[in-house]
Amino acid sequence: MTDLRALRNIRVVLCEPSHPGNIGAAARALKTMGLERLVLVKPANFPHPDADARAAGGLDVLRAAVCCQSLDQALAGTTFAAALSARRRDLTPEVVDARRAARDIAALARNEEVALLFGPEKAGLGSEALSRCHRLVRIPANPAYASLNLAASVQLVAYELRYACSEHSAEPLQGSTLRPGTHDEIERLIVHLESCMRITGFLHPDRPGRLVQRMRRMLARARPESDEIAILRGFLRSVEDLQRAR
Amino acid sequence: MTDLRALRNIRVVLCEPSHPGNIGAAARALKTMGLERLVLVKPANFPHPDADARAAGGLDVLRAAVCCQSLDQALAGTTFAAALSARRRDLTPEVVDARRAARDIAALARNEEVALLFGPEKAGLGSEALSRCHRLVRIPANPAYASLNLAASVQLVAYELRYACSEHSAEPLQGSTLRPGTHDEIERLIVHLESCMRITGFLHPDRPGRLVQRMRRMLARARPESDEIAILRGFLRSVEDLQRAR
Repeated sequence: MTDLRALRNIRVVLCEPSHPGNIGAAARALKTMGLERLVLVKPANFPHPDADARAAGGLDVLRAAVCCQSLDQALAGTTFAAALSARRRDLTPEVVDARRAARDIAALARNEEVALLFGPEKAGLGSEALSRCHRLVRIPANPAYASLNLAASVQLVAYELRYACSEHSAEPLQGSTLRPGTHDEIERLIVHLESCMRITGFLHPDRPGRLVQRMRRMLARARPESDEIAILRGFLRSVEDLQRAR
Repeated sequence: MTDLRALRNIRVVLCEPSHPGNIGAAARALKTMGLERLVLVKPANFPHPDADARAAGGLDVLRAAVCCQSLDQALAGTTFAAALSARRRDLTPEVVDARRAARDIAALARNEEVALLFGPEKAGLGSEALSRCHRLVRIPANPAYASLNLAASVQLVAYELRYACSEHSAEPLQGSTLRPGTHDEIERLIVHLESCMRITGFLHPDRPGRLVQRMRRMLARARPESDEIAILRGFLRSVEDLQRAR
C-alpha cells in the first residue's frame, strides 16, 4: 500500500546549521521527495540569499521553515525522534541503517508525529540532542571518509523515506493501542524525576553523573504512553508529599 | 557477499556540468561511498576554486578526475552504461529505478567496466547520449518537483551502488551495548517499586488497580539494563529512607 501521506507527519530538524546554502539545498532535497516540514534550530545565518539560491524549486519549503530557539521547541508534539550521526559514542540509542530507519519511521508516521534530526556541519549532534532520540541513524559509507554534506544526508534520508512509504510491506512498529507520550510530556517527566531524585538525596547536585542521561535513554526505549507517564508522575508527587510531611 | 571491489569498475560521468561547485560536491559524494572514478565531459568551468571548496575530503577524487572532449571518449572501455534522467522521452532504453539499477550494475561491475551518466544541470541528457546507454535510471521523486540537484543525484546513486555491493554482507551494524537485565532483576525491581508505591501512599492496598501491571508492561518494552535497574532501585531506596526519617 502506498501511503505517502505519512510524509506529512515527518519534520526534518536541522540543528544549528552553519551554512545557509546547506539550508536551501536541504529544502530542495525535501521538496523533491515530497517532504515539506523543515525546522531550523538556531541557524547561524538565516534567511540568506545563498539559502534561496540553493533552494531552487524548493523555495516554498524554505519559506515555510520554522525557526526555533531550542531543540525541545523543535520536538514539541513529536512521539518519536531519530538522529543522523556518523560519530560513535558510548551511550546511544539503538543504531540502525538509513533504510531500516526509514521503514520504521514510515510505519510510525502514519499515525504519529516524527522528527529527524541533523546536527551542525562540523560537530554533528551532541549527546544532549542524542539523548532525546529513539534511534541513531547511520548512512552506510566509506569508513575512510564518511562525511556526507549536510544536504546530501538530508537528500538520502528523504529518498529512503519516500521509498519506504511507497513500499507495500510497511507494518506498524508497535502494537495497536499504544499511544506514546509526546516529547513534551516526557521532558516534563524527566524534570520531575530529576527534581524528586534531588529531594530524596539520591541525586547529589554537585555530582549528578550520568544518572539523568541513563534514565532518559531508558525512557526513549520504553516510549511510555501518556497514561504511564501520568502514573509515574503521580508516584513522584506522592514522594514529594512524603518529604513535605516530614 | 560483500564485494566493494566492484566499485572500482564503475566510472561516474558528468556530461557538460555548468557549475563547478556541483563537480566538487559530486567528488565528495563519490568519495563518501567509496567510488573514485570521476569523468568530466566538457565541463563549463573546471578547474575552479568552487569545485575544490565543495569537494572537501573528496579532493583526491576531484584531482584525479579525467576530462574528456566527447562522450565516446568518456565511455571508452565500458561494456555497460546507465543514464540518470528525470525527463520522459519516446525512445529510451529500459527504465528502472535507482535501487534496481544499482543491483544490476553492482553485479555487472564485478567483472566489467560500467559507466553512469549524468546530464547537464538544466537540460539533462540529450537523446544522442541516451542512445549510448543500456538503462535509463529514475530516482523515485515527487512528481510535482522531481528536479534533484546534480550532486544530490550522484550521492543517491553512489549510495545505492555501495548498498547493493554490500547487500548480502553479514557485517552487522555497530552492536548496541545493551545488556538487558535478567528476568529476576526485573522482578525484584517490580516488587521494590510496588512496595515503595505503598509506602508513599500512591498505591492503595485495597484498590491496586492495574498500576503494577502498567509498569510491568512499560518495563517490558524498555528492557532495562542491569545498570539502569540498579539506578532505579537506588532511587527507590532513597524514597524508603525518606519515610524512615519521618
